[in-house]
Amino acid sequence: MPNPVVISIDAMGGDHGPSVIVPAVALAAKSLPDVRFLLHGDEAQLNAQLAKCPDARTVSEVRHTDKAISMEEKPAQAMRRGKGTSLWNAVEAIRAGEAAACVSAGNTGALMAISKLILRMGANLERPAIVASWPTMQGVSAVLDVGANVESDAKQLIEFAIMGAAFHHAVHGSERPTVGLLNVGSEDQKGHEEVREAHAILKETRLDFDYRGFVEGTDIAKGTVDVVVTDGFTGNVALKTAEGLARFFGAEIKATLTSGPLAMLGALIASGALKKMRRRLDPGRVNGGPLLGLNGIVVKSHGGADALGYASAIRVAVDLARSDFSAEIERNLKRLTETSLKAGAEEEKAGGVSGAEGQGASE
Amino acid sequence: MPNPVVISIDAMGGDHGPSVIVPAVALAAKSLPDVRFLLHGDEAQLNAQLAKCPDARTVSEVRHTDKAISMEEKPAQAMRRGKGTSLWNAVEAIRAGEAAACVSAGNTGALMAISKLILRMGANLERPAIVASWPTMQGVSAVLDVGANVESDAKQLIEFAIMGAAFHHAVHGSERPTVGLLNVGSEDQKGHEEVREAHAILKETRLDFDYRGFVEGTDIAKGTVDVVVTDGFTGNVALKTAEGLARFFGAEIKATLTSGPLAMLGALIASGALKKMRRRLDPGRVNGGPLLGLNGIVVKSHGGADALGYASAIRVAVDLARSDFSAEIERNLKRLTETSLKAGAEEEKAGGVSGAEGQGASE
Repeated sequence: MPNPVVISIDAMGGDHGPSVIVPAVALAAKSLPDVRFLLHGDEAQLNAQLAKCPDARTVSEVRHTDKAISMEEKPAQAMRRGKGTSLWNAVEAIRAGEAAACVSAGNTGALMAISKLILRMGANLERPAIVASWPTMQGVSAVLDVGANVESDAKQLIEFAIMGAAFHHAVHGSERPTVGLLNVGSEDQKGHEEVREAHAILKETRLDFDYRGFVEGTDIAKGTVDVVVTDGFTGNVALKTAEGLARFFGAEIKATLTSGPLAMLGALIASGALKKMRRRLDPGRVNGGPLLGLNGIVVKSHGGADALGYASAIRVAVDLARSDFSAEIERNLKRLTETSLKAGAEEEKAGGVSGAEGQGASE
Repeated sequence: MPNPVVISIDAMGGDHGPSVIVPAVALAAKSLPDVRFLLHGDEAQLNAQLAKCPDARTVSEVRHTDKAISMEEKPAQAMRRGKGTSLWNAVEAIRAGEAAACVSAGNTGALMAISKLILRMGANLERPAIVASWPTMQGVSAVLDVGANVESDAKQLIEFAIMGAAFHHAVHGSERPTVGLLNVGSEDQKGHEEVREAHAILKETRLDFDYRGFVEGTDIAKGTVDVVVTDGFTGNVALKTAEGLARFFGAEIKATLTSGPLAMLGALIASGALKKMRRRLDPGRVNGGPLLGLNGIVVKSHGGADALGYASAIRVAVDLARSDFSAEIERNLKRLTETSLKAGAEEEKAGGVSGAEGQGASE
């Protein structure tokens, strides 16, 4: 095996722990031949599961710990008491250079806090972001931030654009991702100061993606752009609103198609296609939301994910680990700085009249 | 007819104008016997339509104008050049005491700007809000603000809660509406300062509704509360995200159910039930979004609404006109002031230690 990628797994995280995670590793291993795994967690439980999954056993190494972080633990507590837990050790393996990426289905707040503490922010990045892969009419879009922050200024929104584009390129394979800034209308003067300022700067800077300007809520499902950039509050509400609506659809479809003998017959005949569709529509079902912006790749799986879902989170981690994701971000951040330095110089020449928007970026 | 309610109609607004609006008036008149209408717009066009709709003719009075505001006009332009247009005159009729409420399917920005200019804000209210009636698993919830503002402080969020509860009571008939504040989690410390401050004040004040604390995006479709309060940026994005998803859902259902002979047969059989359901799920399809907070009732209909949709916007206007909507808002605003005065007095006694959050409300 030349150059195997090593993925570090928090094998105790999530609602099901090893009973789902070990089969997920087996599944992932089948389609990802050059990947090996460090499984952090209770040795006895892990070995029992590995005995049942030879495909996982041959590519995994168990790192024992009997400590774990509960799904209810507050981030601050988790940081103080987290040392030596399966989650902590899984992240620490990246810092120690033993693994290229980490996957956890544990408590999001704890994962974010511990990852920031251990890995620190990437060079020149201010804030991390959680990115969601959102099913659309065109394929899959990346929407970020969906909950790492509750407020974001213009500079952070621009960082999210850069990180989101690098993510979409690495994981969803777009050559030159299109990027939009989420707003309440498409004209330049719409929205609050943060989005207008970020918009002005993104329009002026040449980066490795195609900035398309403002997009609206309806554009997300339409797939108008590959990457939808927003603050963590709005993004979280949008994602959860869509998840709630998708569940409502599911319930309504069921109720509608059992509402009378004719509808029931129709449902019976079409049920396979309908079930597949329902799953495809829910942005909560696409698993594997990376925490972007850190010195290392950390992917959050849904707590309730099944083996198939967890395996797709592993695949996201592997895709990111094999891409030049970090280099792409650094390259774009550098261009951004050059552009604002140039704008600053021109502004000085021009007597500082036109650059009000440009200045915001370098604050 | 004892005490007929008079509704003022911008008969030229929207994508279809009189050809949809006059039949809508006829439809509404049938189920609302004590209502009369002032139709503002082109006399020739209106009379031609009224000749075809005797149900509308007997309850309507035409007020001629040949000026109208286009759907593309910017709010600032509309304010400067709007005088004498059908939209302007429809709103002006409320101020003049000729009508109890107004309905327009015209340009939202223009309607908001002109309504604020003519009617002014209601006593002690700071900002207007647009409320959406959102279909849920439990019935219909009111979500506001969905686009009148791009930022909202704690005091404005509290006003939205008061206005939204009065709206839900008047239009959807809840005795004591339940109200939630949209956030990214349910714990007290979650979210940004504005929502935490509004939450602290709403928890402490006894009002005509049942404040249930923070809700998340998933709670909207679930119908966890009757009234969902949020700033206009987040609310607009959430509403449009849901509209986009509902459209995606419609397209997917169609594609899925024509994906093979079995699915097609199933769809054919169940198509009536499926079509009904699709319509029920889209928050963009419940018509009649009032602009709350003004000295007068102004209801926005969708520009593309059909006669049935427009008639339901008229019904919303009539329900609000017949309710004690404004009195309820005033009563609650008074209680809010009393509570914060009391909190202020207690705070002075206690040496000003505990009231930091309370103060925000009276800023």
